[in-house]
Amino acid sequence: MKAIIANQPGGAEQLAVTERPKPEPNQNELLIKIKAAAVNRTDIINRQSESGYLNIPILGVEVAGIVEQAGTETTIQPGTRVMGLVNGGGYAEYAVMPANRAMKIPENLSFEQAAAIPEVFLTAYQTLFWHGRLAESEKVLIHAGGSGVGTAAIQLAKQISNAQVLTTAGSQEKLDFTKSLGADVCINYKEQTFDDDVLQSTENHGADVILDFIGASYWRKNMNSIAVDGRWILIGMLGGAQLEEVSLWELMSKRIQLTGTLLTPRDDQYKADLTAEFVSKALPLFKYEKVRPIVDQIFSFNEVQQAHEHMEGNKNIGKIILKVD
Amino acid sequence: MKAIIANQPGGAEQLAVTERPKPEPNQNELLIKIKAAAVNRTDIINRQSESGYLNIPILGVEVAGIVEQAGTETTIQPGTRVMGLVNGGGYAEYAVMPANRAMKIPENLSFEQAAAIPEVFLTAYQTLFWHGRLAESEKVLIHAGGSGVGTAAIQLAKQISNAQVLTTAGSQEKLDFTKSLGADVCINYKEQTFDDDVLQSTENHGADVILDFIGASYWRKNMNSIAVDGRWILIGMLGGAQLEEVSLWELMSKRIQLTGTLLTPRDDQYKADLTAEFVSKALPLFKYEKVRPIVDQIFSFNEVQQAHEHMEGNKNIGKIILKVD
Repeated sequence: MKAIIANQPGGAEQLAVTERPKPEPNQNELLIKIKAAAVNRTDIINRQSESGYLNIPILGVEVAGIVEQAGTETTIQPGTRVMGLVNGGGYAEYAVMPANRAMKIPENLSFEQAAAIPEVFLTAYQTLFWHGRLAESEKVLIHAGGSGVGTAAIQLAKQISNAQVLTTAGSQEKLDFTKSLGADVCINYKEQTFDDDVLQSTENHGADVILDFIGASYWRKNMNSIAVDGRWILIGMLGGAQLEEVSLWELMSKRIQLTGTLLTPRDDQYKADLTAEFVSKALPLFKYEKVRPIVDQIFSFNEVQQAHEHMEGNKNIGKIILKVD
Repeated sequence: MKAIIANQPGGAEQLAVTERPKPEPNQNELLIKIKAAAVNRTDIINRQSESGYLNIPILGVEVAGIVEQAGTETTIQPGTRVMGLVNGGGYAEYAVMPANRAMKIPENLSFEQAAAIPEVFLTAYQTLFWHGRLAESEKVLIHAGGSGVGTAAIQLAKQISNAQVLTTAGSQEKLDFTKSLGADVCINYKEQTFDDDVLQSTENHGADVILDFIGASYWRKNMNSIAVDGRWILIGMLGGAQLEEVSLWELMSKRIQLTGTLLTPRDDQYKADLTAEFVSKALPLFKYEKVRPIVDQIFSFNEVQQAHEHMEGNKNIGKIILKVD
C-alpha cells in the first residue's frame, strides 16, 4: 500500500510517498480502508524528531474510512464508515485502529469532514470537561481560537456548557470566524492586551478555565486573567516553555489548578474511555448540526509536503486534510 | 467573655486576653461554649498582618465545645458536643459556628483531642482526595510529616486508600512518629536527597500525589519525584514562593496537575460540603480508632503567647491546643 514517511528527520521536504506492507489487525482491532487523514502538530514533531515519539515510521494519528476487516473480538461490521485515533500510521491507504476508539461517522458528514474531528474534538473535550470541569455558564478563555483545537473548543464550550467564550487570534479573518462559531468576546492579541479585555468582559471575575496553547509568552497575562479557583490547561507551548520568574503565592492565593496535558502519548484505555464519553455526550451535536468539523483545506495524498508547510505557516483556520483515495 | 486578640500586628508578645461581648448566633448558626481551640499558622499570619485576612479581631479558626444555643433553622440540640471550623473568633469562651460545619464529637475523644481535628483533617482530606484524587494503592509523598496536616494526611492516605505513604521530616523523632502512624518510607530531608529515595522506593514510578507545604526550595526535587499524571498540591510555602526557573515542558510531558489551595479563605458552602463528606467518609475511622487526632501539647488560655512561640519554633508534632475552660 502507499504510505507517507519522513526519509530522515527534518523539514517537509523529507516527506515521501512510499510502499509499505498492509497492516494486519489483531482480534481487538479494525483494518480501515482510509479515505481521509488529518494533519496534526504531532506529525510535524514526529517528522522532525530523531526518535519519533510514536514508534512507527508512517506518520498520522487520525483517520476516517471504511472498515475492511474486523478482529474476532470486535462488534463493528465491515463496511461501516468510521473515524478515530490511530497509534501512528494514518497517512496511508490502510491502518489498524483499536475497535474501542472507532466512532461511527454521522451520515451528514463526508470522510474529509470526519477526519477533521477526532484529535481536535477529543482534545477539546478532554481539556474543557475532564481537566477544566467547565460548568454551566462559566467563563472560558480559549487561545488560538482559529486553530483546530480552538475552533472545536469554542463550539463545545458553547453548546455543552453555554459558557461565556472569550478567544484570542491574530487576524480579523480568524476573529470573525470564531465569532461565527459562537465566541462571545474575540480579542486580537496583536492589537489588544488580552488580560485587560478578559477582566473587563467578565466584570473582573476572570476566566474560570483557560485553554493555553502558548505557554511562556502568555504566562503573565494568563495569570492576570484567571479567576479564583480557575483551571488552567496547558496543551501547547507555541510561545516557549521557559519561565524566568514564577510566584507560587499567586497559584495558592488564587487557588489555581494548572494542568499540563497531551493526548497522543496517553495509553489505549484512556483514549477508549475518552472516545466513549465523547460519543455519548458530543457526537449527537454533529448529527443535529449544532457543532461542525472545521476543514481549512484538503490536499491530495501527493501534496503532503504542502500540507505540512501550510500548518507550519500558521495560516489555517481549522483542520488540514489529506485525501487518500 | 474572655477572648484573645493581637493588640497590634506583630509577634507573639502582642497577644492579649481581653473582654469582648458574647456573639449571637443567627438562625443558621450555633453558639458554642468553647472547651478547647487549636492553634494554626493562619492565626500567626492573622496576628502579624495589618489587615488580618479574617475580618474579625478575635483569633482562632477551629474549636471544640458544647452547643449552648441553636439558631431556629438548625437541627442540632443544645448540649451536643461539637467540633468544627469557625470564621474567626475561636480563641474565646464562646463563638458562633455555621450549623452545617458542626461535627458531633465521637464519644471516645476529649475536647482537646476534638479541637485537634477540623482544620488539619479537613485540609488533609480536601488535598488528598478532592484535589489529589488519591486512588487505591497509589503512592503519595507527604512533606512535613510531623506537622498537623502531615500527621493527619499520613493516617487518612493509609486508612482510606491503602496508599504507599512516603514522608519527609527533619528529625529522627518526627520520622519515628510518622512511622508509627503508618508511613512506609520516612526520609530525613536533612540527611538524604528525597527525590532519589522516592524514585528508589517506588521502583522509579514516582509519587502519584505530592502534598507540598514547602514550595520553592523543594520545587526541583518534587518535579523529579512526581509520577506521570501526578497531582501536586501546593498548600504551603515554608521554603519560599519565588521560583527562578520553570520549564512548562516538564509540566506537559509528565502531564502534571499542580494545584494551589487554601482552606481558610474558602466560602461557607465549600466548608459545609467538605465537612459533610468528611463526616461520612472519615469520621467513623476515629470512632473505631483507626485514625487519631495528634495533640502535641496543651496550653492554658493564658499561655497563648507560649503556644504561638511553640508553633513558630517548628517544634510540634501534631496540634497545639488552647484549653479554654
